[in-house]
Amino acid sequence: MDHLTFRYELAQQLRVDSVRCSSAAGSGHPTSSMSAADLLAALLDGHLRLDFENPGDPRNDHLIFSKGHASPLLYSCLKAVGAIDDAELMTFREFGSRVEGHPTPVLPWVDVATGSLGQGLPIGAGLALAGKRLDRLPYRVWVLCGDSELAEGSVWEALEHAGFEQLDNLIALVDVNRLGQTGQTMHGWDLESYAARARAAGWRVLEIDGHDPEQIETALKDAEDGDGRPVAVLAATKKGRGVAEVEDKPGFHGKALVHPDEAIEELGGIRDLRVTPAKPTARAQPHVFEVRGGGLPAFEPGTEVATRKAYGEALRALGDRRGDVVALDGEVSNSTFAEMFREAHPDRYFEMYIAEQQMVAAAVGMQVRGWRPFASTFAAFLSRAYDFIRMAAVSRADMCLMGSHAGVAIGEDGPSQMALEDLAALRAVHGSTVLYPCDANQTVQLTAAMADRSGVNYLRTSRGATPVIYGPDEEFPVGGSRVVRDGDDVTLVGAGITLHEALHAAEILAPEGIQARVIDLYSIKPVDAATLRRAAEETGGLVTVEDHWPEGGLGETVLSALAGVGAPPVRVLAVRIMPGSGTPAELLGQAGIDAASIAAEARELLKTRR
Amino acid sequence: MDHLTFRYELAQQLRVDSVRCSSAAGSGHPTSSMSAADLLAALLDGHLRLDFENPGDPRNDHLIFSKGHASPLLYSCLKAVGAIDDAELMTFREFGSRVEGHPTPVLPWVDVATGSLGQGLPIGAGLALAGKRLDRLPYRVWVLCGDSELAEGSVWEALEHAGFEQLDNLIALVDVNRLGQTGQTMHGWDLESYAARARAAGWRVLEIDGHDPEQIETALKDAEDGDGRPVAVLAATKKGRGVAEVEDKPGFHGKALVHPDEAIEELGGIRDLRVTPAKPTARAQPHVFEVRGGGLPAFEPGTEVATRKAYGEALRALGDRRGDVVALDGEVSNSTFAEMFREAHPDRYFEMYIAEQQMVAAAVGMQVRGWRPFASTFAAFLSRAYDFIRMAAVSRADMCLMGSHAGVAIGEDGPSQMALEDLAALRAVHGSTVLYPCDANQTVQLTAAMADRSGVNYLRTSRGATPVIYGPDEEFPVGGSRVVRDGDDVTLVGAGITLHEALHAAEILAPEGIQARVIDLYSIKPVDAATLRRAAEETGGLVTVEDHWPEGGLGETVLSALAGVGAPPVRVLAVRIMPGSGTPAELLGQAGIDAASIAAEARELLKTRR
Repeated sequence: MDHLTFRYELAQQLRVDSVRCSSAAGSGHPTSSMSAADLLAALLDGHLRLDFENPGDPRNDHLIFSKGHASPLLYSCLKAVGAIDDAELMTFREFGSRVEGHPTPVLPWVDVATGSLGQGLPIGAGLALAGKRLDRLPYRVWVLCGDSELAEGSVWEALEHAGFEQLDNLIALVDVNRLGQTGQTMHGWDLESYAARARAAGWRVLEIDGHDPEQIETALKDAEDGDGRPVAVLAATKKGRGVAEVEDKPGFHGKALVHPDEAIEELGGIRDLRVTPAKPTARAQPHVFEVRGGGLPAFEPGTEVATRKAYGEALRALGDRRGDVVALDGEVSNSTFAEMFREAHPDRYFEMYIAEQQMVAAAVGMQVRGWRPFASTFAAFLSRAYDFIRMAAVSRADMCLMGSHAGVAIGEDGPSQMALEDLAALRAVHGSTVLYPCDANQTVQLTAAMADRSGVNYLRTSRGATPVIYGPDEEFPVGGSRVVRDGDDVTLVGAGITLHEALHAAEILAPEGIQARVIDLYSIKPVDAATLRRAAEETGGLVTVEDHWPEGGLGETVLSALAGVGAPPVRVLAVRIMPGSGTPAELLGQAGIDAASIAAEARELLKTRR
Repeated sequence: MDHLTFRYELAQQLRVDSVRCSSAAGSGHPTSSMSAADLLAALLDGHLRLDFENPGDPRNDHLIFSKGHASPLLYSCLKAVGAIDDAELMTFREFGSRVEGHPTPVLPWVDVATGSLGQGLPIGAGLALAGKRLDRLPYRVWVLCGDSELAEGSVWEALEHAGFEQLDNLIALVDVNRLGQTGQTMHGWDLESYAARARAAGWRVLEIDGHDPEQIETALKDAEDGDGRPVAVLAATKKGRGVAEVEDKPGFHGKALVHPDEAIEELGGIRDLRVTPAKPTARAQPHVFEVRGGGLPAFEPGTEVATRKAYGEALRALGDRRGDVVALDGEVSNSTFAEMFREAHPDRYFEMYIAEQQMVAAAVGMQVRGWRPFASTFAAFLSRAYDFIRMAAVSRADMCLMGSHAGVAIGEDGPSQMALEDLAALRAVHGSTVLYPCDANQTVQLTAAMADRSGVNYLRTSRGATPVIYGPDEEFPVGGSRVVRDGDDVTLVGAGITLHEALHAAEILAPEGIQARVIDLYSIKPVDAATLRRAAEETGGLVTVEDHWPEGGLGETVLSALAGVGAPPVRVLAVRIMPGSGTPAELLGQAGIDAASIAAEARELLKTRR
């Protein structure tokens, strides 16, 4: 068999196997797989440099299915290269199977989960950035994109950044099959419309017939000649290619074929071809950044320092100690103090401009290669990347996020800049860690702790300076809490800004004969349930106070910790009206989360108890 | 004074007033205001057709500051047109003032809140769509954009949609002042880089010197000649224009000037010019869609119908009854059943393709003009638009969202498609309503109820068919709940999919002598605290069960409702491990939220109580 004939046969096998596994499952996306089969056959046979037997080899190319619904094609490829066998392929979408409905990293050859469209390309851009600037290895990042997903703004963020960063190790194979889920895409087969956009962003564009083996070969070869520009191979294809019943017809998205046996026959029957992609030949090891070591920053108790500033100093110091730590920021590094890291470690700092989706996606891409990203912006603007954070958990990504300017305590800038939903959003991410320090030394400890934790880690910091109440050598284990003041009448639970208000409230209450216990709940998730339960047993009730909407934040965290055993009264103080501008003190007062409000609520609670 | 001299003087006044109000506040963004002053002076004086005395006039043009941080300029404009007086201008950023740090609709001339960058243009595209296809009035939508915010993918979604929809009533004035918050933008003053992108998306582009009154006049005049293409006026400007100390210099973003008096002198001193924008002259009234009336759909108890399908039928029927109801969908209308609305009311249906940010933004834009948008996609993918939903609340937007395919109960598609954080995210939106029906007739009632509610309303629906357990005439008030089965031993609380599992669990427990009360908590927010408290008093404890992560969902809603008074044990059943693919039954079982798990937890709870 000559090369192109082999590829044709291999592509037909990929189609047949896509039909077979989705028909066995009774669901899935065979037609979206069939359109890209020729592209993938060519990629596997002569272009991809990936040792499937050693998926952890740092020199390997990466292959991301941004159109994750084409998972039947991916799994058919894995079978063709011998990574999985036919029996496993045929467990597609079964309970407990690794070949899930959409790809996830339970398969060692899958770097990141996809299936939420428009994520694979920005993540691929992050991986390509890692290749160029961190690993400094010549691996390529191949991303199979659908045309429908090009409607996502995140794709354009990726185009923009990849062009700007000259990521010629990033190659997007765009399967322009014209048909979305419900009908034709905006641009159909108008390749030129995509080409103009990509070119404008600094990409090299190759337009081909995605079913013509010769054109594909020429394009892939061409794409490998890096000239400083990322490459988009725009391939006009037909959805359901090869089976007349469904080819280029609407109405067959996301469905197993009605007549799979006939389709398989039409495709030439079941084959058992094997293909062995090239192994990476580069001898280089990943680049290692030299570090100078040194301690963590320490702050003098009694001074006032913003926790966001302590974050910046801690991050810089972490970078001094660990070469794997990298930082990304959404063009607010003088607000998040990520600039301190940038100044000390410019090689490991990534300016992501005002593109929070791309920022989080790049972090996900970098952690694939073992780097430890810290991505920062205003906490409110992490909401822009919430789908990426959600999917990072499905990707089993290990990464750190820092959101500054939390709550009404930011003051004059007003509600658009105030994160009041971030605790709820970040808690509701599987396996996440949510930390909210109240002082500079605590911030340092928690920032350092985050760097060793798996999953999505989130640190919430405040804009204004807060008193340093802890010594620099105190320890704050994740999952712990701190009883800052003892008392048995009532418990006040705060964190961050509100811990200081709670302490002040306790001082107000003391002369009235009310001894308040104050708990610093710096670890919102995981939470120190034992200390909270003890407080529930030993005091007359709890007042929780948070600079956050009442839903899903600190108060509900406390309620959850106490739920199973029955609880004393818990009063949840939180922001319940839409704030405007004002001084921090005015806004904390208006929201009813300042010291006076906490004291009043504690009195009220004790009155009903007595 | 000739026209251009007047404009120059007016622009200087806008600069001076921007300096004055931000200096009085001690914060704000004067330099970001000064760069765009010439553009705004020209717009007010001869181009904007807006009757500031009648901001509700449907014929008015709309002016959106997508770069919301240029609020000093906006407020200076409002003073120049006589909408606010100088005294109010000087309350900038004060507690209780309408002139907040970033614009919000507490000012009647502000349609939507901005300040989260990259939102004004997509919202403007929605307003422009409303102008073309709903109101059918010739108003224009002027959007002042910054150059930094063009890095947001949402801006490219807006470019894409506006081009595709031929919105020549949309004019973006892009203030290319080169400098972001921390330094130069990706493209600096390279207007051509932006121009190529916008042209590729079908826009007409005019490149000008943004400080040259003649070029501005020519461009604005030109922009008004609609030729089927939206218009981007790319204006090269200087940040801090007019004050040498700050002009075109980095390091002055978001700060009051250090020497305001000198700056005001350099700008020619305080002026008190007035400008009266043209009033709209069109006589037309907004288009009114004729409706045929008719009842709401009804489903036969005992049959099985997916709640997403009931949503589609309800929405179609709502459209039959109300001409103000419009629908938008993210290219999944055959999954959300928004296609039923599309088929019946194609003029009021908007295909937003796979661009969830633009979908929500368009809904926000349309409700500005009094339309009632229903925007739908998979619930998981609403997370893509979370910042837009958050900001919609700040915008005081009245709109409806529907998210389908909630939870592990979707089955084989796997975690990327499963919404497991949507209740937490949507609850934590100020003033939101969160509804989660379990059957088709309930879905119909709640869909209809949403259409009359203010704020952000969210309906969560399920993929699979569920038994119709309620009659078509039963009522389900928002904020209510339904005791579906009586019992005094234990209370089971579910909603949606899990209500059926809870009912089944009660049937399992009954022969064991355990009489379980089952509550259908279809209204997650606001919640029926009274019924929950009664159950807490009358039964031995509660088991809550939700197809959602444990954080911020139904369980914590129940805990919050019971918090103030002290509560019996509450056991929260929720999804606690990362699901894969499988059948709905397998995945509900694995997550421990199926009937057997609920029954087991109830037994356990009662054991510890007895």
